[in-house]
Amino acid sequence: MSYPEDLRALVDAELERLRFAAQPATAGLEEAMRYSLLAGGKRVRPVLVLATARALGADPQRYLPVAAALELIHTYSLIHDDLPAMDDDELRRGLPTSHVKYGEDVAILAGDGLFAEAIQLFCEQPGAPDRVLAALAELAAATGVDGMVGGQYVDVAGQASDADELRQLHGLKTGRLIAAGVGVVLTLEGVPEPETIAYRRFADELGVLFQIVDDILDVTGSDEQLGKPHGSDERHGKLTYVSLFGLDRARELAAESHAQATAALAGASGETGDLRGIADYIFTRNE
Amino acid sequence: MSYPEDLRALVDAELERLRFAAQPATAGLEEAMRYSLLAGGKRVRPVLVLATARALGADPQRYLPVAAALELIHTYSLIHDDLPAMDDDELRRGLPTSHVKYGEDVAILAGDGLFAEAIQLFCEQPGAPDRVLAALAELAAATGVDGMVGGQYVDVAGQASDADELRQLHGLKTGRLIAAGVGVVLTLEGVPEPETIAYRRFADELGVLFQIVDDILDVTGSDEQLGKPHGSDERHGKLTYVSLFGLDRARELAAESHAQATAALAGASGETGDLRGIADYIFTRNE
Repeated sequence: MSYPEDLRALVDAELERLRFAAQPATAGLEEAMRYSLLAGGKRVRPVLVLATARALGADPQRYLPVAAALELIHTYSLIHDDLPAMDDDELRRGLPTSHVKYGEDVAILAGDGLFAEAIQLFCEQPGAPDRVLAALAELAAATGVDGMVGGQYVDVAGQASDADELRQLHGLKTGRLIAAGVGVVLTLEGVPEPETIAYRRFADELGVLFQIVDDILDVTGSDEQLGKPHGSDERHGKLTYVSLFGLDRARELAAESHAQATAALAGASGETGDLRGIADYIFTRNE
Repeated sequence: MSYPEDLRALVDAELERLRFAAQPATAGLEEAMRYSLLAGGKRVRPVLVLATARALGADPQRYLPVAAALELIHTYSLIHDDLPAMDDDELRRGLPTSHVKYGEDVAILAGDGLFAEAIQLFCEQPGAPDRVLAALAELAAATGVDGMVGGQYVDVAGQASDADELRQLHGLKTGRLIAAGVGVVLTLEGVPEPETIAYRRFADELGVLFQIVDDILDVTGSDEQLGKPHGSDERHGKLTYVSLFGLDRARELAAESHAQATAALAGASGETGDLRGIADYIFTRNE
């Protein structure tokens, strides 16, 4: 299956359309937020939202607010992660990172602003208010201490020292938000619990797969493909699937993870072709 | 009227009770978040929430999730505002600021984490889901680019150069979140639009009053009273009500603002004694 480029086009058009500043005094902040938001990428998280909607028989267009909210939160996490006090990265997707271009103060605020605007967007999601609220609570949990922010903390605190702890770190830092891309749609559509199990298993495994491939690409990718200098994990002394298991075993683990994700998906009801396309892309990507 | 200390005690107990880390790996992040959250203060924003609830005849206890959410967001804004790339402050309420105690990386994440946890708390607020959702959108708007974060941006960008722009800066940076403390309760209680006008006018003026007094205290307060070195506005070259108008005129402006706030409140229905107590405290405080 191929990556659902039609859904990516929907996401890109929606993100391009978004404006944040109601007054001239904050136009510079909006510029910084849009700079990072529109830097491109495959839009895995929002596309996952729309593909899940389609799998469940819902109109993907209807899910654009939630899809955009997820990409805003992802972008905010990248901006803060790149800061000098964090990973101190100067390039992302081939462009200077936010703090290099706009200064550290504006970069911190651009991240903060994207998070707040994401919550506003999510509140505008059409649907029964009780479901929107439950889905938003799910997203906030995936973003907070027991999710992405907590994972970034474990990362900077350098606490992971074996495979289990590495899996926990990535489960929080990357996995929770990817899984939320599927989970919030299940909640919004009111899918009965038993039918969500296969979807949630798929989503959880997708996060693992994403990270193993990320670790491999950091070693094997060219600077051009990655849009940043490769080998940054090693320079930062980070524990990765490659440093733990070696490249060959990491590739086997990626293949196993892809197989588990697609097996889980096979047990899900609905038109899951686009979700399969996303899993295939994450497994075979070289950027 | 005196400050509603009973409501402050409710808030303090609620904040003390909150836990954020579900796993040992993120306990250090929770510690940093609680360090700043429990550093004390008058809890103006959450007390405003509870006092508004009481004025409208609702049980303040019921509003503790929303009240706590506001204080979490306020605390997150202080942590990020104190960062070296922002105001570079080393003391707050007599204690080392978050980045001095825990490092910049953890301070950034403690702020991010508090914001995410605030959204989760708000989602748990009892009430009709459509009203909770509308109130949350209001809070997110008050926090984002057209609110607190936008105000911080105007502040660091050094764009304010006259009284109008100063009022705009503070309206965004301080006023929107204070006003939201009243506004979200009006929304949650479903108060008819005409009856909200006096409350909203009061809340808007309270933000102005708060800032004028803040500027005065930065000049006249002792380091002990402020819990940080006084005169920091002048050292940062910030435009303030005092630098613009002089101390005597700033004091007159504070008195006028207090009079306007209390006049607005006099036009509001309900038991507004506690709200009056908050306005009086903000006007006469010396810390």
